[in-house]
Parts: sequence; structure tokens; C-alpha cells
Amino acid sequence: MWRTPLRWSSTSVKKGIENTILELERLLGADKIKTTASMKDQHSHDESHHRVRAPDVVVLPGNVEEVSGVLRFCNQNKISVVPFGAGTGLEGGTVPVKGGVSLDVMSMNEIVEINAEDFDCTVQCGVTRNTLNKHLHETGLWFPVDPGADASLGGMISTCASGTNAMKYGTMLQNVLNLEVVLPNGEVMYTHGKGKRAKKSAAGYNLTSLFVGSEGTLGVITEATIRLHARPNCISTAICSFPSVYEAVASVVNVLQCSIPVARIEFLDKQLVMAINRFSHTSLTELPTLMLEFQGMTNEEVKVQADLIGEICSDNKGSDFMWSYLPEEMEQLWKARHNAYYAIVAQRKGCNGFSTDVCVPISKLAEVITAVRKDIDESGLLGCILGHVGDGNFHCMFPVNESDEMEVKAIWNLSDKIVKRALAANGTCTGEHGIGLGKRRYLVEEIGENGIKAMRTIKEAFDPNFIMNPGKIFL
Amino acid sequence: MWRTPLRWSSTSVKKGIENTILELERLLGADKIKTTASMKDQHSHDESHHRVRAPDVVVLPGNVEEVSGVLRFCNQNKISVVPFGAGTGLEGGTVPVKGGVSLDVMSMNEIVEINAEDFDCTVQCGVTRNTLNKHLHETGLWFPVDPGADASLGGMISTCASGTNAMKYGTMLQNVLNLEVVLPNGEVMYTHGKGKRAKKSAAGYNLTSLFVGSEGTLGVITEATIRLHARPNCISTAICSFPSVYEAVASVVNVLQCSIPVARIEFLDKQLVMAINRFSHTSLTELPTLMLEFQGMTNEEVKVQADLIGEICSDNKGSDFMWSYLPEEMEQLWKARHNAYYAIVAQRKGCNGFSTDVCVPISKLAEVITAVRKDIDESGLLGCILGHVGDGNFHCMFPVNESDEMEVKAIWNLSDKIVKRALAANGTCTGEHGIGLGKRRYLVEEIGENGIKAMRTIKEAFDPNFIMNPGKIFL
Repeated sequence: MWRTPLRWSSTSVKKGIENTILELERLLGADKIKTTASMKDQHSHDESHHRVRAPDVVVLPGNVEEVSGVLRFCNQNKISVVPFGAGTGLEGGTVPVKGGVSLDVMSMNEIVEINAEDFDCTVQCGVTRNTLNKHLHETGLWFPVDPGADASLGGMISTCASGTNAMKYGTMLQNVLNLEVVLPNGEVMYTHGKGKRAKKSAAGYNLTSLFVGSEGTLGVITEATIRLHARPNCISTAICSFPSVYEAVASVVNVLQCSIPVARIEFLDKQLVMAINRFSHTSLTELPTLMLEFQGMTNEEVKVQADLIGEICSDNKGSDFMWSYLPEEMEQLWKARHNAYYAIVAQRKGCNGFSTDVCVPISKLAEVITAVRKDIDESGLLGCILGHVGDGNFHCMFPVNESDEMEVKAIWNLSDKIVKRALAANGTCTGEHGIGLGKRRYLVEEIGENGIKAMRTIKEAFDPNFIMNPGKIFL
Repeated sequence: MWRTPLRWSSTSVKKGIENTILELERLLGADKIKTTASMKDQHSHDESHHRVRAPDVVVLPGNVEEVSGVLRFCNQNKISVVPFGAGTGLEGGTVPVKGGVSLDVMSMNEIVEINAEDFDCTVQCGVTRNTLNKHLHETGLWFPVDPGADASLGGMISTCASGTNAMKYGTMLQNVLNLEVVLPNGEVMYTHGKGKRAKKSAAGYNLTSLFVGSEGTLGVITEATIRLHARPNCISTAICSFPSVYEAVASVVNVLQCSIPVARIEFLDKQLVMAINRFSHTSLTELPTLMLEFQGMTNEEVKVQADLIGEICSDNKGSDFMWSYLPEEMEQLWKARHNAYYAIVAQRKGCNGFSTDVCVPISKLAEVITAVRKDIDESGLLGCILGHVGDGNFHCMFPVNESDEMEVKAIWNLSDKIVKRALAANGTCTGEHGIGLGKRRYLVEEIGENGIKAMRTIKEAFDPNFIMNPGKIFL
């Protein structure tokens, strides 16, 4: 059910693959072409449960010219190409459903240029966000988009990643200024012109935004110019418990109305707080909970903000309000939150994690979360809810025994119900993980026939031979 | 040079136009079809100097079905359609270079829905930003994107407008959640699905961003769901003079580095301050000047910010630092800034205004502005520089006697030089006015051959009969 065995190739197919490998070796040199079982297996999946098959060959280009060469050859021979980054995706976006070439971009890991005065930098697509942030340490700047995993920047752009900091800093959509892209025919394109780094522009179609979230289906992103931000001087964290999700969400709306510069507002449902207490040996109140991080120039300023937040929470029947600007206390709290996934999986031995990813207008959030909680309870499954609630984005996470077909089916049914609730509430089937393999069936329902037709029109115009990451986004 | 006389139609062309008018009257009713000379003249230009010809007919559809009917008919008969809003554009984007239909959207002026709790609203494309903000007054929310003129939201989306508030609130690109679009074949599409209002999404290609800034060349935007923001509690304004543009820009960089929540940072060069003093009877120090607006929750907070800004300016040799949070004092200052255009035009009797619009990385800003100032002085023209310098965007504004061919030519030459300086500094030929007619020649230089090819591919895919706003964006 979860893992389809690799297809046996017929003799002629095998011959074709052998020729492909020889040609790729000729283009890039044999050391950049990998066909070992372990390499192919590693490139057959991401961090999700999606499994289809392995690629026929893994290539490791070291620069844009090599990517161009590979794409030109594959396009001429109609061979599938699946870009592969850190492999931390959650919707199977890098699974090579038709085999072919897995194009691993992680050798392109150069930080090309940092323009501290301009709050931007240019990186190759294989640079990960932690590597970049370590490198930026001395500058007082950082790249705040944080999907949790140490993803590659190319992958984050391709899936329109966001995470806990999106409230203040936006998603990848708001943080990319320019992209170097290799088109399926091997041509190299700059979405905003080579070397261009203006903070804003009204020059022609937004090609940059088109490639953000395109999941490797239109070309290969090889280099990106991205926005940087000043590291905040002072940070503080607050935590508060509520009788129900309604009061927690009402507090979020009040906080937003007061223009308090909140960087993160995370919601944890009662079941998640219980799992965290057990896993991280914390003693958080086991009720629906909000964790907030706010930022300012001085400790006095964040104290004023904390007081205001305390009042808002209290007005909404919040209890056990705590706040801190001490690094060790804050770290303890956020570490517990960051370990939520492990806390959930640890509830049952030998299980993997499964995550949903919907996003709804905030006015519908309490109602949808409450209904979803009821769905989970009725299913008998052990699920927790956590959310980037400032954006209306929330995840249900389950420990799942992948060898239990009944359980797997039950989780899929539940996931389907959750997506349908989100769509009915004018929301989206994916806030930040992308469509990949897992959400294709919902895209038409969400976008509508004519919207999908427009997307397909773009796909066909850019990739007439359909070589780029086939089987993704579209059914 | 500036105004090309209307082309005389041949008899067969005339016959075709008469039939078109009859068919449109049949579709929409005669009262929505206008052919008077005054209506055609009004729809032959925007607020810029660009003049080519008038449309053959102006249509005033009242809803999306009527827009759909007009487009379907025009597409079948290959008749040009030019969407027209408030007519406040600055690059000739609504000039009907091939005649045909001017599709005036201003009858579609309904505020469809305000979701205060979700910080969003849905409006028809003919609603202007002032109308919307008046309507929002009671909610404590506002739509902050402010290009100066009282533009229609549809027009602002089509040109990716921004203005003085973009630093804090972003451009139109960051403020649109969903669009209802009529495609050239008459089909109605929702860029993110009908009624969808999630704050973020990773579902398929960013069709919304593709239509922002597409200048009516891909379809007609009929309705938009846009983000709203909480009105700030406290606002304060500071003004400071500097020995040269270098120190002014250095102050801007320092302010950004300190994460001070600045909403606006406007630069005025010495010549502009002089013009303003004369026009508005102010007594500002006649030196390169910064005007800043910052926002907070309390007056104490904005006082702390003002003190910090004062220090930064002083460190950069700023003088005559003044700040205020008194509405009447702030209004006086910003009114003087808002009247800059009139102050410039008033320098010479019988002249119109001409504005350039480039945007460069901030590290290049002082150097480029200094060089451009020298270009202006050497040209002998009377130009002033003002800029939204937090974004690196600046305008040179000239009073121009449009009947003086030599002067017009000199201004074009100077404008050309300014764009080339911006492009050489990794900037863009248009920060916020769009390409329209005036910047087409620079687009290839800026984006590159392959980028333009990608844009043309999109154009052809969406509008195979090239009926939508022909002659814009592409040469």
C-alpha cells in the first residue's frame, strides 16, 4: 500500500537506461553519475510516507552549465528529470514516479554573494537554511523562513515553504528577489534578469513568483537571490492556556488587531501538550495552548508587549500566562514545541509520523479545529493538532504503523475529511507542504476547472515534452 | 511627437467598427456602449504624456458576465480590448494603440465583502483605494498601499502599484489573495479558487502573482480579495537634513539594521525641498532631506523610536532633526510632500509633469542618485528627485513644455540615461509604474532574452489571438 515495488525493466528499457547513463557520464564525468542501490533508494523518497519507485540514475551536477547539459539531453530524449534537494519534503514532491533521472542539486552549495547593506544574498540552490544562517551570523542578519527541517533553499522555494516565522517575515513567496532557472530545453533564464536585485519591480510578468511553489515541474532552480532581515535585538516568549480552542483563536485575532509585532503564534491542542509533557518532561498545563514570540528593540518594549498580550489572553479566559525574555527559559519552551513531531511519534513504538497541512481564514479556524478534533476522536486514532495560527495554518500529526493497512486507510480517510473541511471553509488543501503526490486530487476542487486549465497551459508552454517532475501537482 | 493624430479609418474598417458597436449594444444594451468624442478622448490616455490614438468604442460592463460576453465576442472577431480603470496610470498602460474596445471597469464598483476578523475584503475592480478606505473606517482596518493617486484596485493590481507605504506593508504583490479574472476567450477563472481566502497557500502555480503586474495583457481582473491591515494606534513623523545624499542613505541603512518599524522613508533632494518651500510656504532646510513615518502601539514607543532615529541621523551628520506625533504638524509635513508633484510643475507656467521610476539596491542608491543629479544639472533641465528610499525606488520629476520638441527630446534622453544607470546598478527600469508603452524598450535589457521569451510564451498561451491590451509590455 505504501511502497510499490520497483518495476522490472524490459530488455529494451534496460538498454535505453544503460545508454542514458553512458551519455550522462560523457556529459558530467563518471564520478557525478550514481547508480548504486543505496543512492537510488535515498532518492526514491522524502520524509513522508509516499513511495512509488526509485530513479534509474542519480546525477550530481556541480554548476548551472552541467544542469543545462543534463536537461538538454533529457529533453531531446524525453527522459524524466526530478530535482532533488535535502529530501525533507512532506508530500512526495521529489519521488521519481516514472524513474528517469534524479537530479541532486546538493553539490551546488555555494553562498555566492552577501549584500549586507542591501539585506539580500545570492545562494546556489543546494545551500541549506541552517548553513546560510551560520554563515550570516557575523552580519547581524538572518534568513528567517523556517520550515522546521534543514531544507535546501532550492527545495524551500520549490514548495513555497513557510513555517513558524511566516507571520512576521512572510513565506518564500515574499522572500525571493530573483532566480536562475534552467528550463527543460537547457536554456538558462533569470526570472528578473541576470544579477538584478531591486527590492521591488513592476517590470513584466512575475516569473519569480511563478517558479516559487512550482515544485520542479517547470525547470530547475539553480541559484536564488533572497531577502535577508535584521536579527531582532530582543525577543520574548509567552505561553498561555485556554478553556477551548475558541478562546485561544479569539486571543490571536485581538493580538493581530493591536498591531503587536508578533513573530510567531503557535497553537497546541490539549493532546499535543500532553504528549510534549510526557516526551520533554515539561509540566505545561494540559489545555489548548498558545505560544507566542514577539520582538522589539529593547527589553522594555517587549515587556510592554507581554503585558498587553497578558491582558488580551486574560480577557479571553486564558490562564497560567507566563512570559520570559531569558534565553534559557525561551529555549526550553521552543525546544519542547520543536520536538512536537518526536513527542507525537514517541507515543507509539515502531511508528512513523503522518502530517496533514491545511490553512483556513482565521474566522473559521476555531470551528474547523474543533470539528477536526472531533473527527480524530471519533476515528480512534491518536492525533494531535498544532498550528501556525496567525496564518490560519494547522497540522494534524499522527503516529502511524505503516504495516497496518487498516490503520493507514483510516488515516487517509481522516486526512481526506480534514482537507474537505478546510476547502468548505474557503481554505486550502496545503498551507506550506505543497501538492506533490498527496494533494493532487484536491487541486481541481480547490482551484476550479478553469484555474487548473490555466496552470496546465503554463506547464505545457514551459515543458512541452513533460520531462520535468512528471506526476506532480497535476493528476 | 507626443500626440499622434487619430488614424482615419477606411470604409471597410468603418463598416467593421459599426458592426462591432451594434453587436456590443446587443450584448450589453445601448446605454453601456459609448462612442461620443469626449468618451473616446477620455479613454485615449492616462495621466502621462503617452498619446497614440483613441479607442473605437468604450464599453461599460456592469458585471463579470458582461465582461465575459464582450471578451468572447472580441476574441472571436480578433478585436483589441484595453481594460481601463481610474485612468491614473503613468506609463500609457491603458492607451488603446490599436483602437478597438476600451473596457471601462469603473461601473463594477461594489465592495462585495469585508471580513474584518480575517483582515481581508473582496472588492470589484472599479473600487478606488480612497473609497475602500472610507468604507473601512469603522472597522479599525485599512488598505495601506498608496500610489498617490486615487487609483482603482484593478489598476493597482495590474501595474503592481506600491508607493510610500510599501516598506512596511509591501506592494500589491504582497497584498492580493485571490482574483476573479475573465480570460480572453470569455472563461471566468479564480486564481486561487472561487471564494478562497487562506492567508497562505502552496497549492499549484501562483496564478495570483502572475496577474499582478500583467497590465491587462492576459485577461480582465473583475474582482479581487485583498489583505487588510490594522490601523496603527500611534504614528509619528520625523524630518532631517543631510550634507549630501550619501549621509541620508547611510541613515536609511542604519534604520533598517535596527529593525525600527518604519512605515515610510522618503528622500527629497535639495531642489525638491526648494520647490516645496516656494509652493507650500514651508521653511524646510534646503538640503537633501529624509522624511520618516513610524508606527507603534503607544506614544512612548514612538518617542523611543524617534530618539533612536535622531541618534542615527546625528551620527550621519544630519541636522535640523524634528519629530512630531501631533496630527496637525504631521499633516502639514506630509501634505507638503504629497504636493511635491504640483510644486515641481508650478516652477514653470503652462507645463505638465514628467516622471521617471527606477529602483536600485540600496547600496547603490547614493551613487546613482548623485550621478543622476549631475545628469540633470548638465542637461539644463529643471528636475527634482524624490524617492521611496527604503525600497531603493526613486523618481525624477520635471516640468515639461510639451510643445517644445527640443525639450521633449532632451527629457527622453535624460530618462534613457537614468534607466541605464539603474540597470547598470542591478536595478529595474520600473519600481512601481509598470512597463506600459514607455519602458518596453528596456525590458529585454533588464530581463534578458530567455526571460522575455518565457514572458511571451505565457502571453501566447493565455491570449493566442493577441487581443488583450496589444502593444504593451512587449515591443
